[in-house]
Amino acid sequence: MLIAAEEISSLLGEDSVSYDEDVIEHHGHSDWSTANTPNRPAAVVWPRNTEEVSMIARVCSKHNVPMVAFGAGSSVEGNFSSPHSGITIDFTHMDKIVAFHPDDMDVVVQPGVNWVNLNNEIKDSGLFLPLDPSPTAMIGGMVSTNCSGTNAMRYGNMKDWVINLTVVLADGRVVKTRRRPRKTSAGYNLTGFFVGAEGTLGLVTEITLKLAPIPQDTSVAIVSFPSIRAATTAASRIIRSGIQLAALELMDDVQMQVVNRHGSAAVKKRKWEEEPTLFMKFSGTTDAIKSDIKRVQELIKNEKPGPFHFAKTKLEELDLWAARKEALFTMVSTRKEGTVLWSTDVAVPLSRLADIIDISKDECSKLGIYGTIIGHVGDANFHTAMFYDPHNAEQKAAVKRVVDDMMHRALEMDGTVSGEHAIGIGKKDCLVEELGQGTIDFMKTLKRAADPKWLLNPGKVFDLPDAA
Amino acid sequence: MLIAAEEISSLLGEDSVSYDEDVIEHHGHSDWSTANTPNRPAAVVWPRNTEEVSMIARVCSKHNVPMVAFGAGSSVEGNFSSPHSGITIDFTHMDKIVAFHPDDMDVVVQPGVNWVNLNNEIKDSGLFLPLDPSPTAMIGGMVSTNCSGTNAMRYGNMKDWVINLTVVLADGRVVKTRRRPRKTSAGYNLTGFFVGAEGTLGLVTEITLKLAPIPQDTSVAIVSFPSIRAATTAASRIIRSGIQLAALELMDDVQMQVVNRHGSAAVKKRKWEEEPTLFMKFSGTTDAIKSDIKRVQELIKNEKPGPFHFAKTKLEELDLWAARKEALFTMVSTRKEGTVLWSTDVAVPLSRLADIIDISKDECSKLGIYGTIIGHVGDANFHTAMFYDPHNAEQKAAVKRVVDDMMHRALEMDGTVSGEHAIGIGKKDCLVEELGQGTIDFMKTLKRAADPKWLLNPGKVFDLPDAA
Repeated sequence: MLIAAEEISSLLGEDSVSYDEDVIEHHGHSDWSTANTPNRPAAVVWPRNTEEVSMIARVCSKHNVPMVAFGAGSSVEGNFSSPHSGITIDFTHMDKIVAFHPDDMDVVVQPGVNWVNLNNEIKDSGLFLPLDPSPTAMIGGMVSTNCSGTNAMRYGNMKDWVINLTVVLADGRVVKTRRRPRKTSAGYNLTGFFVGAEGTLGLVTEITLKLAPIPQDTSVAIVSFPSIRAATTAASRIIRSGIQLAALELMDDVQMQVVNRHGSAAVKKRKWEEEPTLFMKFSGTTDAIKSDIKRVQELIKNEKPGPFHFAKTKLEELDLWAARKEALFTMVSTRKEGTVLWSTDVAVPLSRLADIIDISKDECSKLGIYGTIIGHVGDANFHTAMFYDPHNAEQKAAVKRVVDDMMHRALEMDGTVSGEHAIGIGKKDCLVEELGQGTIDFMKTLKRAADPKWLLNPGKVFDLPDAA
Repeated sequence: MLIAAEEISSLLGEDSVSYDEDVIEHHGHSDWSTANTPNRPAAVVWPRNTEEVSMIARVCSKHNVPMVAFGAGSSVEGNFSSPHSGITIDFTHMDKIVAFHPDDMDVVVQPGVNWVNLNNEIKDSGLFLPLDPSPTAMIGGMVSTNCSGTNAMRYGNMKDWVINLTVVLADGRVVKTRRRPRKTSAGYNLTGFFVGAEGTLGLVTEITLKLAPIPQDTSVAIVSFPSIRAATTAASRIIRSGIQLAALELMDDVQMQVVNRHGSAAVKKRKWEEEPTLFMKFSGTTDAIKSDIKRVQELIKNEKPGPFHFAKTKLEELDLWAARKEALFTMVSTRKEGTVLWSTDVAVPLSRLADIIDISKDECSKLGIYGTIIGHVGDANFHTAMFYDPHNAEQKAAVKRVVDDMMHRALEMDGTVSGEHAIGIGKKDCLVEELGQGTIDFMKTLKRAADPKWLLNPGKVFDLPDAA
């Protein structure tokens, strides 16, 4: 591996390669992640363009060295860990907006572009990328995990916003999946093939993204309910009505307590009801929003909602929504010395959301685990965050049991073990249970065709074949 | 091939196999299609379920016999033709709605279900499949061509509405791509891999579809413009504004003449302006529609639109929209004895739509070709339909030149040679030009991995490798 790193250094320049222990640690382990491995990459390299990524792949392929793509490092399932060591390719120097076509409503970017920065850069055009994952996320990682976030109810997930990809294959060849039409049915959907593949099929070096018009107006309403079931029933009525909210989010009683006690100054301006709470983001024209709000109030009155709290100003709207967006950070800020976080997500068919949240909360409280629930109820996807002491075997086993049971339950309900965090190393066994060995074998057949030496992010999504 | 057909007959029953000449002709040639081949299948078989399709694939694989999937037979690029003969698998007996889950907003169907019938069956639930291709189309063909239609502006195309697929692989193995969550990032996106693959990667035998709530209200407006450019500029302003029309369609002056002269009785109740015309379908709540219409009128006033014609009743709305939906049929009904139709489509980045339509119309008129333009301007995709006498070499060459030039022009503008009809045998060369040999080679690598003997719909999307 060091030979490969040295060869890359001679091609790209010494500044482009690091063997520094701290750098390697930062690229090999994450406190945010539920899944880590004791192994570390042998070196970290920073390419500046597609050609350099191609050179790196040629060298690694020649020497049979694993290649692991790295972006913001904020994924949570060990997606960028290095269980088979190898060379980590850090895309943070590839952070350019390559071309912006406002009249075509698209933008071409490198993978190291942060999505919040992108939206700031282009906001005067009235366009934006409507995904809303963690503010830390970079486009490359968003593509590779098929991320979503709070806006997915209206706007779908990452695969719906990618027009084309430039991809470096395992052996260094470069392919472009499409030209730049907004719609096409020409040939295989390679774009969709690489999105969500976690860097195991190719290294994404350029992305053309669809953009959406920024809605004329938005309005945020916060409503609490007597139970999770009442809140999800209300959510379900709203979804079935066809009213197009931009977002529809649930936080449970425990998470609302956390917000009251530990939220940011802006968020703590008011005292929140410590009950299951829906955060609704209306968007559209000012008139349409007024009409939507009236309809929603009528639709859900049987679920005994508390009063609707609306933001009176745009600033207040940001403060209200911040309670939702900061939730995980707020939760983490309450972490006691010596405990660690286990954060995970599943998604189920819409009608089963209340069931699975209720059962999972019950189990948590029976086993004495402190955890919160945040749900993207618009697409029946929810997250739990739990703290435990990793040196307390009993506590660790209890958390693991809650997670395992949640996964099995999601599958019994015909759902998925990962709504938006992908598989990484953390959920490989669950994926086999979700799809069955036949489907996994077919995925591996495609993986082998694309990467015969199994060098791209090996050990992610599924285990290496015995022969490799 | 006959041995394989007889073996299938012994497994599935004699009624499931036909060697009848008329049947074979109907499955091997289409007057609707732009691309045909002189070859024919050796037999046609009608499976009733996934297990029977799996049996057929095992037999064909054993005897190295090509397998061609057939649905409604309404595709236009020779997608179901049999250039290498083989056995055609007709899915029309697999026409069951397997399970309807209104609370999950999804439905499980077999590939032979017609989408209009499906929407009629489930309409009392307030849900519908919002795609809108030819009324003849079956779900299986819609999946395999990644179809769209007039509603794509708001609802996207077929790939956006498929939750999971059950697929019989070339060797008869059965895989299911997903369970039934509305959102997932677990493992490779096999669903997206099979959608649009034209039956070259597997035989789709069951489909779970997302459904959307039927909008509370709709309203149709028809507006004519002094030029194509004025109409597309107006369209572009509407799109950029974020106003969510369900559909935004363009018909050119020639197509409007055809409507006036040859439209159905309902359509001919009024005399249409014979100018470039936008058909707008507003949808949402009644209040929101009122507000949207006002905004649209304000937005496009600089493009000198004629008066807005609105439907006053739901019946009138259907009549107005029928002028658009019937357009191709109306055009075909004007066909002179001895002439045939060449129908094709391309899509380009939004800003180039007016350019490409203008140039293509100019070329048509210079070469004396009678043709019309219908555009899904909401996603910069448009269709031309041209008549020519196939025995008139000069005319045939002229039409071919218009089509070729249109393809090249679409590619120069960074567009695609097929917006919604897929590639079939008609556009294979164009696809190489669109994506480049490197990308085609990568597609072929995946094809070979999925179907090593190259038996599934061979000769579609791209040519067979020399070795096969």
